[in-house]
Formats: sequence, C-alpha cells, structure tokens
Amino acid sequence: MQQRIASGKNADQPGPAGPSGPQVILGIDPSLRGTGYGVIDTAPSTPATLSQGTLRCPADWPLSRCLRFISESLEAVVQDTRPTLAAVEGLFHAQNVRTALVMSQARGAALAVLGRAELDVFEISPRKVKQAIVGYGAAQKEAVAKMVQTRLSLPELPEPDAADALAIALTCAQSLDSPIPDKAVKPV
Amino acid sequence: MQQRIASGKNADQPGPAGPSGPQVILGIDPSLRGTGYGVIDTAPSTPATLSQGTLRCPADWPLSRCLRFISESLEAVVQDTRPTLAAVEGLFHAQNVRTALVMSQARGAALAVLGRAELDVFEISPRKVKQAIVGYGAAQKEAVAKMVQTRLSLPELPEPDAADALAIALTCAQSLDSPIPDKAVKPV
Repeated sequence: MQQRIASGKNADQPGPAGPSGPQVILGIDPSLRGTGYGVIDTAPSTPATLSQGTLRCPADWPLSRCLRFISESLEAVVQDTRPTLAAVEGLFHAQNVRTALVMSQARGAALAVLGRAELDVFEISPRKVKQAIVGYGAAQKEAVAKMVQTRLSLPELPEPDAADALAIALTCAQSLDSPIPDKAVKPV
Repeated sequence: MQQRIASGKNADQPGPAGPSGPQVILGIDPSLRGTGYGVIDTAPSTPATLSQGTLRCPADWPLSRCLRFISESLEAVVQDTRPTLAAVEGLFHAQNVRTALVMSQARGAALAVLGRAELDVFEISPRKVKQAIVGYGAAQKEAVAKMVQTRLSLPELPEPDAADALAIALTCAQSLDSPIPDKAVKPV
C-alpha cells in the first residue's frame, strides 16, 4: 500500500498525508489545445471539487506558446489548491503517432510542473479510468462526465476534458483506498 | 526573411536582434536521460560558445523527476546566457514509437521553458542539421561532433548530445543568414 502512494524519488516514504489519509488530488488530461484539469479533496464523504477547467489554446498559437500557457496555468492551479498528489492519463490509446507526439509534449510540460512542485505523480490508463468511473473500459466521454457529475455532486455537467481530469483524480483516490495494488496505476 | 526569424506569436515582428543582426542562439537536443544544450553567440566571425553540456538523468529517476531537472536546468541556462533565439531538433526520425513518446515529453518540458522565456523557437529536422554541418544527411554523431569542434574552435571534442545541440544552433544561425527560406527550419 505504502509503495503505491510513494513516488520513485522517495519510494520508502509514504505520501504527504500518509498511506490512507485524505488527499488533495490534481488530475490532468493533457492535450495541446485543451488540457483538462480537476482538483478534488478526498476528506469529505463526497469528495469536494476545489478547481476544474479546460486550458484552451487557439489553433493559431504556436506549440511553444501553448506549452507556456499549459505550464503557467497548471503552476497557478498548484499554487491555488496545494495538491498532495497528482495523476495524469497514461499514453496508451493514441489515435495516431503524430497526435500522440503532440500530446506527449503537452504531457511533458505538465509533468515538469508537477515535478517542480515536488508532487508524487501517478499515471493511470484511460481504460482503467473508464472502468473505475463508469464500470466499462470503452465508455463514451459523455458517460464519464455524467458519472463524474454524480460522484462529485456538481451542479452542472463538467466539460468533457475537465470531466476526464476529475475522473482521473477520482480513480487515483479509489486506487489509494483499495487494499490490492493496481498495475494500471503506477508512479511516474 | 523577416518571417523566418519571427515566431507565430508575433509573426509581424522581426526577432529580438533584428532580421540579420547577431544572435545568441540556444540549441537543444531533447531526450529524457541526456538532453544536450549549447549556446552560441553569432556576433564574432567564429561564433563564440557561451555554454554547452548534457543534462543527464540516472535510469532510476522517475519521469517527473527527469522533466523537473530538464526544466530547471534549461531555465538556469536561459537566465545565465540570455539567448535571443532558440532551436530544437524536430520529431522526424524516431527509432520507435515508445522512444518517440518519451522523447516528446522531454521536448515538451524544454519548449515550455523556452515559451515562458518568450523566446522565438525554431525546429530543425535532424537530417537538415547533418546536411548543414557535415554536408551529408546521414552523417554519424562523431562526424557532427568533430565538425562542431572545428566550426566553433573548441579546445576539446564536445560530448555527442552537446555537440548535436551546438550543431542545431549553428544550423539555425546559418539558416538566418541565408537569403532563401528553408522549409526544414520552421517556427514552433
């Protein structure tokens, strides 16, 4: 259990709030033009949503400007919400190589921010997230968003990318509570 | 000409030192375990090497720690050397998809630093760099390093990744001096 919330950089130490204590989890669904983020506090019986949104970059912004925006925006989210853990989507189901390479650059910019904030970071496969939230690994985005809305008692349906990020954070929380280590949730 | 040294974020403006003036160019060859960097000042008749090196991350560091190190180290290089332009290797010749996805994350972390420093950034294909430096698009790394040593009058042969980064900076400088726009050198 301890291993599952410790990152490789301090693998003998439990996470910031202890192995089974409440966590503030930042979930990120990286993408160049629309990175979703969502921060949940697992202390209440229904997790509280501290922040959520989509970082949109217009199509005419060059790559370096988008990555700057993603980096600065996520840094501000971290400063505002003080997460104790972070989770990002894994790189498992890319539609094509070019798309995956672009998305990976957004992921790298995001992970650098998390690393600089000294957060323990987990990656979770998209399939695992859908299974954990909807109970079906090939669920549609709208089904994920509706279930996230229900689980977090949100007044409105979250936008698709923000919903995915909140789903990642919820799946990470669920995994930390499980007594059985899950290979689909691993430190990066 | 003006377009070739202006980034998409201010495409009507020439670069910081004007279209054909001397530049301080930061070249980067991103990779998760060994990012090469090199900074040249094009003002002297033989360009001066202001800084060069390889950012090594041990194999047991997790991804987020490597990306943090790359991000913080390149930020320090930018602060120390005050480049006016930056150039990175393009994503054209990946050996396999998994390697390319990992490298792209390092590239994303690096480009976010360059974006945050408000640098105009160019990407140059590896083939173009080899052609420009050695005259042969499939040249070996050692041939590139030897030519970089000669072109920059370096007392010692640079390490392979640093040599690649210096070669990228030299190719960028060469392209800026050319009257014919080169499609292999493009703003990102």
